[in-house]
Amino acid sequence: MSKQIEEDLDDITKKILHIGGMVESAIDRALISLLDRDRETAVEVIRGDDVVDNLENEVEEKCLAVLSLRAPVARDLRYICGMMKINSDLERMGDLAVNIAERAEVLAEVPPLPFRPDVSRMAGVVKRMVREGLDALIRRDADLALKVWKTDAETNRLYRELIGEAIGFMRTHPDRIGDVMHLVSALRNLERIADHATNIAEDVIFVVNGRIVRHHMIEFSEKMGAFADPKN
Amino acid sequence: MSKQIEEDLDDITKKILHIGGMVESAIDRALISLLDRDRETAVEVIRGDDVVDNLENEVEEKCLAVLSLRAPVARDLRYICGMMKINSDLERMGDLAVNIAERAEVLAEVPPLPFRPDVSRMAGVVKRMVREGLDALIRRDADLALKVWKTDAETNRLYRELIGEAIGFMRTHPDRIGDVMHLVSALRNLERIADHATNIAEDVIFVVNGRIVRHHMIEFSEKMGAFADPKN
Repeated sequence: MSKQIEEDLDDITKKILHIGGMVESAIDRALISLLDRDRETAVEVIRGDDVVDNLENEVEEKCLAVLSLRAPVARDLRYICGMMKINSDLERMGDLAVNIAERAEVLAEVPPLPFRPDVSRMAGVVKRMVREGLDALIRRDADLALKVWKTDAETNRLYRELIGEAIGFMRTHPDRIGDVMHLVSALRNLERIADHATNIAEDVIFVVNGRIVRHHMIEFSEKMGAFADPKN
Repeated sequence: MSKQIEEDLDDITKKILHIGGMVESAIDRALISLLDRDRETAVEVIRGDDVVDNLENEVEEKCLAVLSLRAPVARDLRYICGMMKINSDLERMGDLAVNIAERAEVLAEVPPLPFRPDVSRMAGVVKRMVREGLDALIRRDADLALKVWKTDAETNRLYRELIGEAIGFMRTHPDRIGDVMHLVSALRNLERIADHATNIAEDVIFVVNGRIVRHHMIEFSEKMGAFADPKN
């Protein structure tokens, strides 16, 4: 039994990491399509989402089967519940990558907007969050997860700055307002991807440390002593 | 044992419905603050969110304890996993209500924008989704849950129409672009509340029918024969 559950958990982890890899790639390609005005890549991302959806269902069914057949307790139970949450976060991230690709498809057909460097900066930060969130999961590394969690504040700051720029540009270019709104929507989806990466980081900490940290993250962060200023 | 687990599930359900009631009230008040430009109510909603956060943690801990101590299978297992998801959806809906209240707080300080009737219509539809999603949960009513799921398309349509109006208004009133962007953000959060109500509807169907319907909803909808056109 103990060996069986170990194999089961291993199987779930492999599947989750597989989905994680696919979602990471979808996000990367969605951002390429947005930054490089690359319509074909956008269409590819949109078409690829079904695979992630099917894998998500598979993982969920597997987790339920393991819960039912093996009746895991303590650490194993926590692990499976954490994986179920991460599974659902990854699926949503895949949807959000599709949303970005849909906006990129529209934006590829209109004259370029002048925000590329800042969009690229925000995209880089979010991509790193996703990468490190998955790394933290692979290595069961609560410190790295906390780093990801902490980075969400930076993403929010970059997002707000970009929205400020977008508002300024719309004021002077009212004929481009519709186009800018497509970009704003893409950025909003990017910011939500960062939120889900933050959720994954929280779940990694939950799995590793066995605590629900969501609303205790500030005290947790203080305890870890890793960072001076708490998330607000 | 069987009686004990029944009591446990009952306790979880009561707690979830309690959170549901609080979140529904937060959404209602956030929308009042937005529609009536009522700063005080907005502040109230923002301050009240901690309570929901704490209750969510409590429910999650309770679910984990029941999974661990009672090792439920089949229907009971499905029920608890469904409740854990609904719990987390409700918590997010509470956060989104706070986001709306934050925008309402800003918008109460600037001259009124001309979209009240349409915002009010969208708010009405979303409020009904939340109400009926919780009703479907109370009554374990898959038909009502399917109705909620179906209404999400209407919300998306109303949202898109409002964004179109907002773009038109910004073109002719470039000095109001910043204000309109606050409203757009509030609407976006409202649309996400509808998404979470849709998730709850899916989970109710999962709990009642024991199937993961998320990505099979179209076939499911056809089987139920309740509606002619599938969600796209």
